[in-house]
Amino acid sequence: MRILVINGPNLNVLGRREAEHYGVDTLETIERTLIEKGEELGCELIFFQSNHEGGIIDFIQEEAGRADGILINPGALTHYSYSLHDALVDSGLPTVEVHLSNIHARENWRQTSVIAGVTIGQITGFKAQSYSLGLEALVNHIRSQKEK
Amino acid sequence: MRILVINGPNLNVLGRREAEHYGVDTLETIERTLIEKGEELGCELIFFQSNHEGGIIDFIQEEAGRADGILINPGALTHYSYSLHDALVDSGLPTVEVHLSNIHARENWRQTSVIAGVTIGQITGFKAQSYSLGLEALVNHIRSQKEK
Amino acid sequence: MRILVINGPNLNVLGRREAEHYGVDTLETIERTLIEKGEELGCELIFFQSNHEGGIIDFIQEEAGRADGILINPGALTHYSYSLHDALVDSGLPTVEVHLSNIHARENWRQTSVIAGVTIGQITGFKAQSYSLGLEALVNHIRSQKEK
Amino acid sequence: MRILVINGPNLNVLGRREAEHYGVDTLETIERTLIEKGEELGCELIFFQSNHEGGIIDFIQEEAGRADGILINPGALTHYSYSLHDALVDSGLPTVEVHLSNIHARENWRQTSVIAGVTIGQITGFKAQSYSLGLEALVNHIRSQKEK
Amino acid sequence: MRILVINGPNLNVLGRREAEHYGVDTLETIERTLIEKGEELGCELIFFQSNHEGGIIDFIQEEAGRADGILINPGALTHYSYSLHDALVDSGLPTVEVHLSNIHARENWRQTSVIAGVTIGQITGFKAQSYSLGLEALVNHIRSQKEK
Amino acid sequence: MRILVINGPNLNVLGRREAEHYGVDTLETIERTLIEKGEELGCELIFFQSNHEGGIIDFIQEEAGRADGILINPGALTHYSYSLHDALVDSGLPTVEVHLSNIHARENWRQTSVIAGVTIGQITGFKAQSYSLGLEALVNHIRSQKEK
Amino acid sequence: MRILVINGPNLNVLGRREAEHYGVDTLETIERTLIEKGEELGCELIFFQSNHEGGIIDFIQEEAGRADGILINPGALTHYSYSLHDALVDSGLPTVEVHLSNIHARENWRQTSVIAGVTIGQITGFKAQSYSLGLEALVNHIRSQKEK
Amino acid sequence: MRILVINGPNLNVLGRREAEHYGVDTLETIERTLIEKGEELGCELIFFQSNHEGGIIDFIQEEAGRADGILINPGALTHYSYSLHDALVDSGLPTVEVHLSNIHARENWRQTSVIAGVTIGQITGFKAQSYSLGLEALVNHIRSQKEK
Amino acid sequence: MRILVINGPNLNVLGRREAEHYGVDTLETIERTLIEKGEELGCELIFFQSNHEGGIIDFIQEEAGRADGILINPGALTHYSYSLHDALVDSGLPTVEVHLSNIHARENWRQTSVIAGVTIGQITGFKAQSYSLGLEALVNHIRSQKEK
Amino acid sequence: MRILVINGPNLNVLGRREAEHYGVDTLETIERTLIEKGEELGCELIFFQSNHEGGIIDFIQEEAGRADGILINPGALTHYSYSLHDALVDSGLPTVEVHLSNIHARENWRQTSVIAGVTIGQITGFKAQSYSLGLEALVNHIRSQKEK
Amino acid sequence: MRILVINGPNLNVLGRREAEHYGVDTLETIERTLIEKGEELGCELIFFQSNHEGGIIDFIQEEAGRADGILINPGALTHYSYSLHDALVDSGLPTVEVHLSNIHARENWRQTSVIAGVTIGQITGFKAQSYSLGLEALVNHIRSQKEK
Amino acid sequence: MRILVINGPNLNVLGRREAEHYGVDTLETIERTLIEKGEELGCELIFFQSNHEGGIIDFIQEEAGRADGILINPGALTHYSYSLHDALVDSGLPTVEVHLSNIHARENWRQTSVIAGVTIGQITGFKAQSYSLGLEALVNHIRSQKEK
Repeated sequence: MRILVINGPNLNVLGRREAEHYGVDTLETIERTLIEKGEELGCELIFFQSNHEGGIIDFIQEEAGRADGILINPGALTHYSYSLHDALVDSGLPTVEVHLSNIHARENWRQTSVIAGVTIGQITGFKAQSYSLGLEALVNHIRSQKEK
Repeated sequence: MRILVINGPNLNVLGRREAEHYGVDTLETIERTLIEKGEELGCELIFFQSNHEGGIIDFIQEEAGRADGILINPGALTHYSYSLHDALVDSGLPTVEVHLSNIHARENWRQTSVIAGVTIGQITGFKAQSYSLGLEALVNHIRSQKEK
Repeated sequence: MRILVINGPNLNVLGRREAEHYGVDTLETIERTLIEKGEELGCELIFFQSNHEGGIIDFIQEEAGRADGILINPGALTHYSYSLHDALVDSGLPTVEVHLSNIHARENWRQTSVIAGVTIGQITGFKAQSYSLGLEALVNHIRSQKEK
Repeated sequence: MRILVINGPNLNVLGRREAEHYGVDTLETIERTLIEKGEELGCELIFFQSNHEGGIIDFIQEEAGRADGILINPGALTHYSYSLHDALVDSGLPTVEVHLSNIHARENWRQTSVIAGVTIGQITGFKAQSYSLGLEALVNHIRSQKEK
Repeated sequence: MRILVINGPNLNVLGRREAEHYGVDTLETIERTLIEKGEELGCELIFFQSNHEGGIIDFIQEEAGRADGILINPGALTHYSYSLHDALVDSGLPTVEVHLSNIHARENWRQTSVIAGVTIGQITGFKAQSYSLGLEALVNHIRSQKEK
Repeated sequence: MRILVINGPNLNVLGRREAEHYGVDTLETIERTLIEKGEELGCELIFFQSNHEGGIIDFIQEEAGRADGILINPGALTHYSYSLHDALVDSGLPTVEVHLSNIHARENWRQTSVIAGVTIGQITGFKAQSYSLGLEALVNHIRSQKEK
Repeated sequence: MRILVINGPNLNVLGRREAEHYGVDTLETIERTLIEKGEELGCELIFFQSNHEGGIIDFIQEEAGRADGILINPGALTHYSYSLHDALVDSGLPTVEVHLSNIHARENWRQTSVIAGVTIGQITGFKAQSYSLGLEALVNHIRSQKEK
Repeated sequence: MRILVINGPNLNVLGRREAEHYGVDTLETIERTLIEKGEELGCELIFFQSNHEGGIIDFIQEEAGRADGILINPGALTHYSYSLHDALVDSGLPTVEVHLSNIHARENWRQTSVIAGVTIGQITGFKAQSYSLGLEALVNHIRSQKEK
Repeated sequence: MRILVINGPNLNVLGRREAEHYGVDTLETIERTLIEKGEELGCELIFFQSNHEGGIIDFIQEEAGRADGILINPGALTHYSYSLHDALVDSGLPTVEVHLSNIHARENWRQTSVIAGVTIGQITGFKAQSYSLGLEALVNHIRSQKEK
Repeated sequence: MRILVINGPNLNVLGRREAEHYGVDTLETIERTLIEKGEELGCELIFFQSNHEGGIIDFIQEEAGRADGILINPGALTHYSYSLHDALVDSGLPTVEVHLSNIHARENWRQTSVIAGVTIGQITGFKAQSYSLGLEALVNHIRSQKEK
Repeated sequence: MRILVINGPNLNVLGRREAEHYGVDTLETIERTLIEKGEELGCELIFFQSNHEGGIIDFIQEEAGRADGILINPGALTHYSYSLHDALVDSGLPTVEVHLSNIHARENWRQTSVIAGVTIGQITGFKAQSYSLGLEALVNHIRSQKEK
Repeated sequence: MRILVINGPNLNVLGRREAEHYGVDTLETIERTLIEKGEELGCELIFFQSNHEGGIIDFIQEEAGRADGILINPGALTHYSYSLHDALVDSGLPTVEVHLSNIHARENWRQTSVIAGVTIGQITGFKAQSYSLGLEALVNHIRSQKEK
């Protein structure tokens, strides 16, 4: 099983971002923990981060054909990138959306996700842990779909 | 560690509710799975379900003093119960909000939680699995807070 | 044929409520008239009134399994009780919503029903008569569905 | 007793309209059933249908002086015809508004009636039966007013 | 100088309409007074009333070529008839909008005119007198434009 | 008969203001024309202009006791001065609101008058002539009220 | 004179709630102070607190017949309980609404009371003192009404 | 193949309307060009223009049975005629909506079409050419549907 | 202890204002009662009324340095005077806002106070008594702050 | 004549996208058809597709100087890319906006184009054919402008 | 060159206002610095501060004739004084709006300026320095206009 | 001192953009003037322009560590780029936002900056001069912060 793990704008500087919202882990630490989790769950992870909306869409298009699911933290693109919305729909892949901070407890504009409507579900607020919970949820979802 | 696991209105008829939104598990099945998960995580679970907003608030007030956290699926109270919002704040306990369905992909009114702003985080869309992910997230949060 | 006849908050004090909106009949008088109407239509009526949202949901859950339809005046719950909305959906029963007053000719907030979208139809403004018209409509609907 | 039974735009093609919303009866069938109901209730019915807002207003103005009440399904004029609103007020006649479909369970714009505020009440969702229920409600209202 | 004096829906039943809003004069009385005023001001008046939006537009199109201005009380069309708006623009004639009642002191929907933006000005609230003031204003405007 | 003729902020610089909106007359010219009109109508005019909301309210309070009506162009106070609204109500005097420009054809904020709801009526768009039409309307209104 | 003193959800845990909003007094302390104030004012107080909307409505219905007024802090029900709104109207009793915190200086949703429109008045922000001021205001109001 | 070509209010005075929005062609010129285009495309065109909403609905009802598609410029009815919306749905015919001007570059109210949601597509802004493009699109659509 | 007692526009004509909203007392009567209350509470009152927003701000600036608190009824300035809002903040004094009428039961625009967010609390609806309750609340607040 | 034919995000995966909205053609097929159409119309086409907003703007800036017009399907950028809006304005070129699906019949957010206001016109809903109609409209527009 | 430097309500108490928003300088200090800057730039400054909207308008009217530009910090009038808006337009002078605090980073209501639309530009957030930057910008603008 | 001077989409074609909004200077001219200003102020400027949101974020991330402040004209990204908002926050650098045109006097959507809330201040409307004023403000701010 191959999972695309995608991080949007500014998530490459985790560790330098506001700790009360995002925690203290760097993206590298998070990815290392995820790899372990992936091994447990028996799946390969393809990591990608970009500050470019277009770059993320390019990546999804290129990789969708040989992947089973998407774990994505779209960063601030969450709130306005209808292009990313369409790319996720077009990929045909089950997607889980995760956020480090509890976006529902911050500015008004952070409380709306234009992405969430086309995902299986959303996990917000558990800092680095949101990713591993999201990965587990995604893998279980894919497995249960295959069983059908 | 003691965790209050609270379910709001109509969640006692799970299994009879629309399967495409809520899955096929009954609340009993979910609770049984959670007990196992709780044992793994080393925590005791106190279950409570009510169709009465007031009953849920009574329960939180009575149990808050001897509990370490709250895992809650407020059902449709999610969308208008400011009284429940205040009860959660007053409990002083870390809270995780879970939903079986992806509320962000349904009717407009289901997309707003008046509760989420006072929780650690929210997990939506993974059917019964939302609960076990939420329990794990909650327990880890409590542990990490204690370490500080 | 068994019909649940449910009245929400404050409808037990009919007769004492503003007559220009609600008419002069007490709930008892209305129920007595309905029983006669029910006999005519060949159906048994199970009456229930509560000021408690949770109590109404409990009642629906308990009785839904052995009933054929619901005639409901949700009182002011009409305007905000998404929990009642979900209970009606979960019951799987055809529902008719009635109001004594013409809610569309009163305060703005009374003009929106969060319930109406999951009913067969709505009858408003005919004082006590709204109930007997609603019962007739409901019974006819159930009969016509059975014929299919 | 003389009742004006008015149907707005597109209701003359009933039978060809979407059956899940409007049922399968033609306007003729509905009118024939209503005549029987009218005879039972002891009232004469004057039928009128037009696709022209102005035609309906002309009709109301001409007939109001020798009528006792109005039973109206304004069709889509329900949602924007303030001119019809004023014509109903000016007629001085008690009015009942009926709809074949449950307008509260369809598109947003169908959920607002600019007419309902000046009627006795509204009956929606019971297909052809909405008319006979409405006629009964109207006749009873007129009788009870006369008794005063 | 030829002035079109146009009255929209329901204004033909003035005298029977609510007196506190519209006064007690019939449209005939108003028109007779206007004829006198027109003679004083040296202008011929062409009267037209219709309950049909389309009829009013037909009239404007037919008469615009041989008229110098329009005095219009659009009745309830004021609030939604964008077709009338366009007909007035297309006529190329200076227009004055009048209302018997003070529309700014009534229901919310009466407080917006979709017509007013393409008129010279608006006179509201002076019952029958609104027309004669409006005629005077219109004639003076036309004269002052000709002088330029 | 004594009429207060009140002009709000910036109306003292008429003649220097944008001619396409306000015309070319100075306030003095307008007042001189009004005096003649007042003599025709048999009424005395008390003129007042101020750029101070408070000054206008002071004036209304002082003069209301010995006046029969108010003709007012509140200038931009039209759009936000609830204090002026209350002063007009408290004066107990019939009031006519006039505007030189057609406020309904300008910026959005100019299209709402917080004053109009407590006046007899409003005349907008006829440049200096709005005042004389307004005076005539006001005097006629006062006379017709006295006759009752 | 008998006054119902009603407290809504979460007010039974005063003392444990956020002190900067609600002060440090427990509900018991507040009630004890109120009893003294009641004795001064010559009135008997009937205390009731519930986390159940329905329980509060039950209480109002049962006690309204033998009471002279209601002093109520509806807690968070203030912001959505139209059922409580109707119960207060139906009681026919003069009502004063009090709040410990200044609701107008907190979250947006706390700034709207669906109750205030049917009370004599509202007192907010003075912690425990809001109650005694409210009681005094209520008793004076009842006395002044009786004198009429 | 028979196509109904329908023009709404004020489109009969094209040529006299504002040229920068509508171009300089008369409706006759447009229709003549369309006839040629129709011949090329192998289809017969039935033209209809009316300033009456009701007239257009009458026409659609009468002709729908023997037509294959509708090309419509609803004029200002575009923005509020829900009756026309329903008539188009009831016709069961594929519909193309055209506009001479670019409605998306004009007043706010012109930017919303209550019709567009029930058409195949919309062509706006190309003056007279919008019609011939629309006809081509409609005919191609009908042909491709038949091939299925 | 010195308290500034400030009244905004139109409050100098109390007694002449609508009695059902404002009661029958004049401002003088209210001030006389307040002086007595002030003596009881051991505080000196400095009275000020103005119809001028600027005058009230001038007064606050001049007196703030030698005062301990502000009791203010801003009149209609309540609803739009952000300048008064800033003056109160800049004074650094604890402020209590009072209203004679229950502003929450009147027009929509009266239900929002741009001042309330920077006060200790608000008292509305108790006619003249609002002032004495407000004074008591203010003095108690100041005393309790000093004790800290 | 040189025309820039620009496609925004996700349009490179046409053929894999939802067929009911976008049809079954790939972008290559569309482009090949367009080339033929271009030859007919006597114009050269420069094709460009990118998932990068910035890339599209770069392309417009580089090519605008040697092009005569732009045919653009901005994909989801249609709904939020004010940067693209500005790039189109700055290019000084006539632009036609096309969409494969009928955006006016889909989600709310798809119904608003931030681009349409600065184009000649918009063609939506005709699948691949939207492009060739758009090209024809654009070329005709450019020719007619040159003739002036 | 003569520049009017105008300060609105509460700016005379700078130094006592919240330092994190407004800085620590008094208005006098700011004016002294501006005089030096004015000398550098070769312009005379006429200072004016008032808490009275009307006073500021009076000043603008009196001085506009012999001034070349206006530098204004309208204080809280920024957010509602349409009268000031009109006075600035009527002055015919180029205007620069300055704010000490960054109004775009504070309360919602502070983020809208009803003045900014009729100025050359706005400078916000640089404490006292906003004035000297604004003066420089204004003088340069006036000079560059004269050169044309 | 090192300052990043960043320009967003379309600002590289200054000189070709609408002169009444943006002035006639090219970006090169502006940068050359800024270099001189920078030398005066004793700071080094690092220029960057991109049409790519992602490119600007990359640049900020790379340079933030060795810079003291940011001077940015985000172009149209101002109005929707929450990703840029987050990048500026994450940089930890004081930022000044500048605009050539007075965005508060243009289209509605240009009047909201999603960036301004995280800057020191904003300068709009002074064409090329906005940059040099902004640079001065930024440098002074940095110096004054260092002095603390």
